[in-house]
Amino acid sequence: MEASTRRSFGSDNNAPVAPEILQAIVDANEGDAVGYGDDPWTARAVARFKEHFGNSTGVYLTFNGTGANVAALSSLLRPWEAVLAPASAHLQTDECGALERFAGSKVIPIATSDGKLRPSDIEPYLLAGHGVHFPQPRAISISQAPEFGGVYELDEVRTLCTFAHAENLIVHMDGARLSNAAVALGATLCEASADLGVDILSFGGTKNGLMLGEAVCFFKPELSGDSAPYVRKQSMQLASKMRYLAAQFDALLSENRWSRYAAHANAMAQLLYQRVKDIPGVRVTRSVRCNAVFATLDRRAIEAIQREFFFYVFDEALPEVRWMTHWATTEQDVEEFAACIGRAVTEQ
Amino acid sequence: MEASTRRSFGSDNNAPVAPEILQAIVDANEGDAVGYGDDPWTARAVARFKEHFGNSTGVYLTFNGTGANVAALSSLLRPWEAVLAPASAHLQTDECGALERFAGSKVIPIATSDGKLRPSDIEPYLLAGHGVHFPQPRAISISQAPEFGGVYELDEVRTLCTFAHAENLIVHMDGARLSNAAVALGATLCEASADLGVDILSFGGTKNGLMLGEAVCFFKPELSGDSAPYVRKQSMQLASKMRYLAAQFDALLSENRWSRYAAHANAMAQLLYQRVKDIPGVRVTRSVRCNAVFATLDRRAIEAIQREFFFYVFDEALPEVRWMTHWATTEQDVEEFAACIGRAVTEQ
Amino acid sequence: MEASTRRSFGSDNNAPVAPEILQAIVDANEGDAVGYGDDPWTARAVARFKEHFGNSTGVYLTFNGTGANVAALSSLLRPWEAVLAPASAHLQTDECGALERFAGSKVIPIATSDGKLRPSDIEPYLLAGHGVHFPQPRAISISQAPEFGGVYELDEVRTLCTFAHAENLIVHMDGARLSNAAVALGATLCEASADLGVDILSFGGTKNGLMLGEAVCFFKPELSGDSAPYVRKQSMQLASKMRYLAAQFDALLSENRWSRYAAHANAMAQLLYQRVKDIPGVRVTRSVRCNAVFATLDRRAIEAIQREFFFYVFDEALPEVRWMTHWATTEQDVEEFAACIGRAVTEQ
Amino acid sequence: MEASTRRSFGSDNNAPVAPEILQAIVDANEGDAVGYGDDPWTARAVARFKEHFGNSTGVYLTFNGTGANVAALSSLLRPWEAVLAPASAHLQTDECGALERFAGSKVIPIATSDGKLRPSDIEPYLLAGHGVHFPQPRAISISQAPEFGGVYELDEVRTLCTFAHAENLIVHMDGARLSNAAVALGATLCEASADLGVDILSFGGTKNGLMLGEAVCFFKPELSGDSAPYVRKQSMQLASKMRYLAAQFDALLSENRWSRYAAHANAMAQLLYQRVKDIPGVRVTRSVRCNAVFATLDRRAIEAIQREFFFYVFDEALPEVRWMTHWATTEQDVEEFAACIGRAVTEQ
Repeated sequence: MEASTRRSFGSDNNAPVAPEILQAIVDANEGDAVGYGDDPWTARAVARFKEHFGNSTGVYLTFNGTGANVAALSSLLRPWEAVLAPASAHLQTDECGALERFAGSKVIPIATSDGKLRPSDIEPYLLAGHGVHFPQPRAISISQAPEFGGVYELDEVRTLCTFAHAENLIVHMDGARLSNAAVALGATLCEASADLGVDILSFGGTKNGLMLGEAVCFFKPELSGDSAPYVRKQSMQLASKMRYLAAQFDALLSENRWSRYAAHANAMAQLLYQRVKDIPGVRVTRSVRCNAVFATLDRRAIEAIQREFFFYVFDEALPEVRWMTHWATTEQDVEEFAACIGRAVTEQ
Repeated sequence: MEASTRRSFGSDNNAPVAPEILQAIVDANEGDAVGYGDDPWTARAVARFKEHFGNSTGVYLTFNGTGANVAALSSLLRPWEAVLAPASAHLQTDECGALERFAGSKVIPIATSDGKLRPSDIEPYLLAGHGVHFPQPRAISISQAPEFGGVYELDEVRTLCTFAHAENLIVHMDGARLSNAAVALGATLCEASADLGVDILSFGGTKNGLMLGEAVCFFKPELSGDSAPYVRKQSMQLASKMRYLAAQFDALLSENRWSRYAAHANAMAQLLYQRVKDIPGVRVTRSVRCNAVFATLDRRAIEAIQREFFFYVFDEALPEVRWMTHWATTEQDVEEFAACIGRAVTEQ
Repeated sequence: MEASTRRSFGSDNNAPVAPEILQAIVDANEGDAVGYGDDPWTARAVARFKEHFGNSTGVYLTFNGTGANVAALSSLLRPWEAVLAPASAHLQTDECGALERFAGSKVIPIATSDGKLRPSDIEPYLLAGHGVHFPQPRAISISQAPEFGGVYELDEVRTLCTFAHAENLIVHMDGARLSNAAVALGATLCEASADLGVDILSFGGTKNGLMLGEAVCFFKPELSGDSAPYVRKQSMQLASKMRYLAAQFDALLSENRWSRYAAHANAMAQLLYQRVKDIPGVRVTRSVRCNAVFATLDRRAIEAIQREFFFYVFDEALPEVRWMTHWATTEQDVEEFAACIGRAVTEQ
Repeated sequence: MEASTRRSFGSDNNAPVAPEILQAIVDANEGDAVGYGDDPWTARAVARFKEHFGNSTGVYLTFNGTGANVAALSSLLRPWEAVLAPASAHLQTDECGALERFAGSKVIPIATSDGKLRPSDIEPYLLAGHGVHFPQPRAISISQAPEFGGVYELDEVRTLCTFAHAENLIVHMDGARLSNAAVALGATLCEASADLGVDILSFGGTKNGLMLGEAVCFFKPELSGDSAPYVRKQSMQLASKMRYLAAQFDALLSENRWSRYAAHANAMAQLLYQRVKDIPGVRVTRSVRCNAVFATLDRRAIEAIQREFFFYVFDEALPEVRWMTHWATTEQDVEEFAACIGRAVTEQ
């Protein structure tokens, strides 16, 4: 079977585009439209964001998640200001140093057991001294859902934001999977972000049914001054045919689609968890709250499973794997995958 | 009439997506696919590029034209090396300094009358001296078609490439409208670029019928060493759901579509030229070879026309306007536009 | 005669250190001193600057002129903001693109006949449009004295500052030779800079008798917010043993030394001008106001003179040479140099 | 007593300039010299470096240690390549993110107990995977002597270099205190660096008796291609009056001065160690091999001592202090300092 067409538990970005999203693209394909966002689709998408997050929200659509994170943070940080992030953050591990190169700012990685930052993790960096010799911590970046599975509870984010603001730190949320987290928490998107004190959000579309597109949301637009439009352009994230990004977000944020797609993905992860948790030889290593299941199992079993399904080994040393579900994962996919896992561990 | 839905002669990026391209996207929306280009659609798109440009071509799809230019040049330039470009180049005027910020390299703008570089424009910069005190010119960037209308003749590009290589300079072609130029020149894409000695090409899709997508083509991949994949990622231009970019390029480069779309756009510009060239009060200022018509006319006439059609004033001082056609411009659009122009200049 | 020990009319940075400056260094070499500027010598130097430029002046010593210009402008510009400068500016031609690389900001070079900017040179760039697509002009950088000889009259700078501020532009003065210009204008340092509306000054020491050292002076410190200390450090311009830079500036700005050194250098240029202006075959090309004489003469004559004296050919095409004098140039040096020039042009 | 004139055990950069070094500066102050290093003093300094490190060594003088580290690494790293360093490295903690801003490259900080890297610290980063999504580790930066006291044994550096080269990693040594380390190890400068496999060295002058000046030494100049001269200029580290940096290094590297100064500093640290190690209430926390003594003691005792002597608290939490000696520290200074410490801990 060709690698690229195997059913994938590799990432939610391996999924196709949700049909309603694709239809929105097709519907937008009518006549001319002025470029760079001066079009009715973008106006509608921005209005949707404001419905969800409040009327003062500043919204900037970008191409991808790395672009969203970099555009968001670069709008706020001066190059001698640093951002504190878990060592596991996408910003630190999967953006090829884009922030450092584009913004000049240092990302300070903080070791955590679960990919979640707490005030006690941050305190030492505020006492570090060094005066002008060390970049000044100015922002905290947290991922909701975290890259290591689980989820920040609402109170955890609220506590962190309160702490951060007391220390004059800005809170950025990498919400590539905010929809999954909000569903897991039984919260609206706003309750899971702006309402808790988050200052800037990278809101993910690609991993929740879109073809491509992320959105930078400034909940306190004054923080970025007039930077954001220029930074988006200079960071190569300004689409000329913006309507095709905008139409997707308009659809995603309408008729509760963001929630339905995420809820399905989360449910499929729960189903997978139920099916594998008692398989001898499989040890689920992290709490399953959103759409990822982490587990350790025998290396030969992994290889056997990978001949049928695509997924990533997250930590080669253990080895620990990550299995992700998405809006289009079916119950049958999960059952067949779980069966394959069961066979593989038994046969080793 | 709402600004954004007026018929547009503003830019070829105001056009919708060509139906065959949109269909290719819809067709690609089937099942899971591994992200970041490890999928069969990307493999097919790369194969198409190699059919057109030769088997050793290195191909990297990006989101937009600024991203393509920056990724292309950043793969080759060290930060103390400079790129020589016409003062009118998109790289200089419309990328918000993205290359300077991302690559650190200086763009040296050269004044030209027509947006085209010639060896005599470049020579003074090679004699400039200053040793380590001035960035070393390492690349030339030319736009085909140029931003100021017209086209480089094949011999002009060949002469420039020969000159550049003799001076150890790399030639980058910003081919956002290479298809239009190739059609105008009666050449294949390869005859209009690689065959003339061009070293790297930013090949445009967005302005020729795609939803989004440009491609960086390295004709001498050894020039970029192993940089290109990392630079694309670090420059925030690596799509996760790559198949949707790739499928578009696969379609564009198949069945001569690139040529048909461009030929239509060029023909519409010629038709417009024929209709307006003898209107008293309209002076066509530049040769019409691809899909742009430049003209000077009375400021009040411009404003009157803009109430019905969208387009840009290119030089406010004269004023000089730019009227662009695209794959979807119809003869009726042109006739109505020309009639509107005729009325507007008469009424002033 | 060894190239490096020939008497030099090449640059005022070919001069030795003035004896009173060297003595100040020797005097500072007593006991321990806390690093990075927290020492009494730095306190005294800063007090001297405030005596000259006013009590609210923010002062940051740097190692060299490129460092001063970059630290000054980087404290004020965001990376999507541009600086307008004459094409002849040191910032553009002799800093190897340091600003672009460090700050990300674009330097927009403006062609001038004499190295001096006027409002009419700047106006087109303020009308350029392009919205977010072009870096926003935010600062003007002028060199006093200009690199092409002559001097800005006080009214010229005042007019430019008034114009700039009306357009919300900051005025940076590269004052590597401000002392020479102030003397030529019969003005104090403050009358020749801050009093005219200049916002930031790179004040030169190295070319007026110091071993090394320049100073960034913020006349409106609020413009840089809290950036300056961090930017100086991050730009690698913060000296640990600061007292040795500070002691030099304390001496230079005391007992009128800055003026005496500069006045001598200027007088030597005037003497040279008087001696060469009537030599057939030598054409002085630019007004001699400070310490530079520009002239065109026969290429073989240039080569003959260079066998005895060191200087630079400024424009190889003409060729045009630049002869510079400095605090230590003697009348005898000038007489012998002029005699050598006379012989050389006669013998060709 | 004024803070800045207290005797300092704060840093070796609080010391004055050694008399023989100052004399070398005074001696260089004779007549004109061509700028930027084309002078006989620079030629002699380079020759001295080659005597010490071998004839193929590429030598670039810079202003300060941050400049040396950034120029060294920027000459070798592409912006998508990363450098691995201990979390305690000056590069990580005391350069205000200069490398990130100037080079774009990520510094990956590695937690260590003693500021020393071992192959086992590095291995996990070579297995991290992430493909193009993570910057590629390309260099290791080690500090000799380490910032946390102690010293790398010769074998430790050799083992690390062998490991690094097998992994295609370059080894950079931040040798701000290499002289102290070499003396402690009974090795020549070359035996303690190039002979062990180190590829690039930042050789420190400022902390061993110079007024200012560091030197980047490329032991395999081919690694940097033709970058180094341009990078030094673009990083704002090229002195115009280079002779005054060069003369200092010529003197330092002659007549064994580098060794004598460092040996004295080390001996004073040993003396201090002997005097304080048995004081009840003072716990020396790290091995004393070069010119630093680390200790924990009561916070009120620290404050009492700081009223008479200047030094830094290195870790506020414990608290742990760092006491440094230098070429000019006298036995009497040490005795009085130790006596003061004794009194302070007794009185609490």
